[in-house]
Amino acid sequence: MGASEDTRPGEIAVAAGTIEAAAGERVVFIGRIRSAWPDRDSAPRNLRQARELGERGRVEIDPPFRPGLDGIGRFSHLVLLYWLDRSRRDLVIQTPRHADAPRGVFALRSPVRPNPIGMGIVRLLSLDIGAGLLEIDAIDCIDGTPLLDIKPYLPSTDAFPDAVT
Amino acid sequence: MGASEDTRPGEIAVAAGTIEAAAGERVVFIGRIRSAWPDRDSAPRNLRQARELGERGRVEIDPPFRPGLDGIGRFSHLVLLYWLDRSRRDLVIQTPRHADAPRGVFALRSPVRPNPIGMGIVRLLSLDIGAGLLEIDAIDCIDGTPLLDIKPYLPSTDAFPDAVT
Repeated sequence: MGASEDTRPGEIAVAAGTIEAAAGERVVFIGRIRSAWPDRDSAPRNLRQARELGERGRVEIDPPFRPGLDGIGRFSHLVLLYWLDRSRRDLVIQTPRHADAPRGVFALRSPVRPNPIGMGIVRLLSLDIGAGLLEIDAIDCIDGTPLLDIKPYLPSTDAFPDAVT
Repeated sequence: MGASEDTRPGEIAVAAGTIEAAAGERVVFIGRIRSAWPDRDSAPRNLRQARELGERGRVEIDPPFRPGLDGIGRFSHLVLLYWLDRSRRDLVIQTPRHADAPRGVFALRSPVRPNPIGMGIVRLLSLDIGAGLLEIDAIDCIDGTPLLDIKPYLPSTDAFPDAVT
């Protein structure tokens, strides 16, 4: 999807060709996320809302990358990075449905961004390394979303409960 | 860099061509991170160590993406995603220098991963939207590392101080 799509009032897109001109290396899809949300309209607005809904998610890792799961069972929480492949990439100023005014993309957790990478901290419920399967407490993305990375969540580095928003 | 490089004892690479075969869309570089670390050998091992060293970092956003900074000043902490462009991508089992035994890549925060995306939570110290400049408390990557994304850090969604490692 590109710069030719409609915008809401106040929204601003980068000039046509900007995303293409800044393109670098290719991401690799290491698996996919299975969720209870078949499409954007049914999906929760964010991961906090997804957790409240209580629907678990699943992560499927492709065979070549399954050995990389060795040792993740010792972590209670994981960082997932996923590629929001149905999102346009060109809107630098956006007016989300829940927002009162237009805002910069980097002040939003919108799926629409120059690199449509979603980040979610999830709780690992069960793990089958041989089958490349992880069960997780919740996820906010559409069923089938390509997975880019799993990282161990380290509270000493990643947790800032007093951060101001 | 590819699968032909050396491995340490116990390390396992995916078969040659695996990364290429799984390649999807291209990332876009929206700017770069300036740090006090000119190369891998001088860089701290992780962001916690970088914070202890007390060297600030800087983020430079390219002109087309600067409007996207509007509103980020209201957040004390930001999530940075960056592309570790000097890292090989093929090692699914790794033996980091500080580890006692080989481990899966998804149990490590190593820069070597199928998608070499670094994630760092940083404190925003100052912001000049017009010049596309952010000053941040610390960063662990090499000077000049390409930036992929900035997200607002939301403690209600992202902070798990009691996560087990």
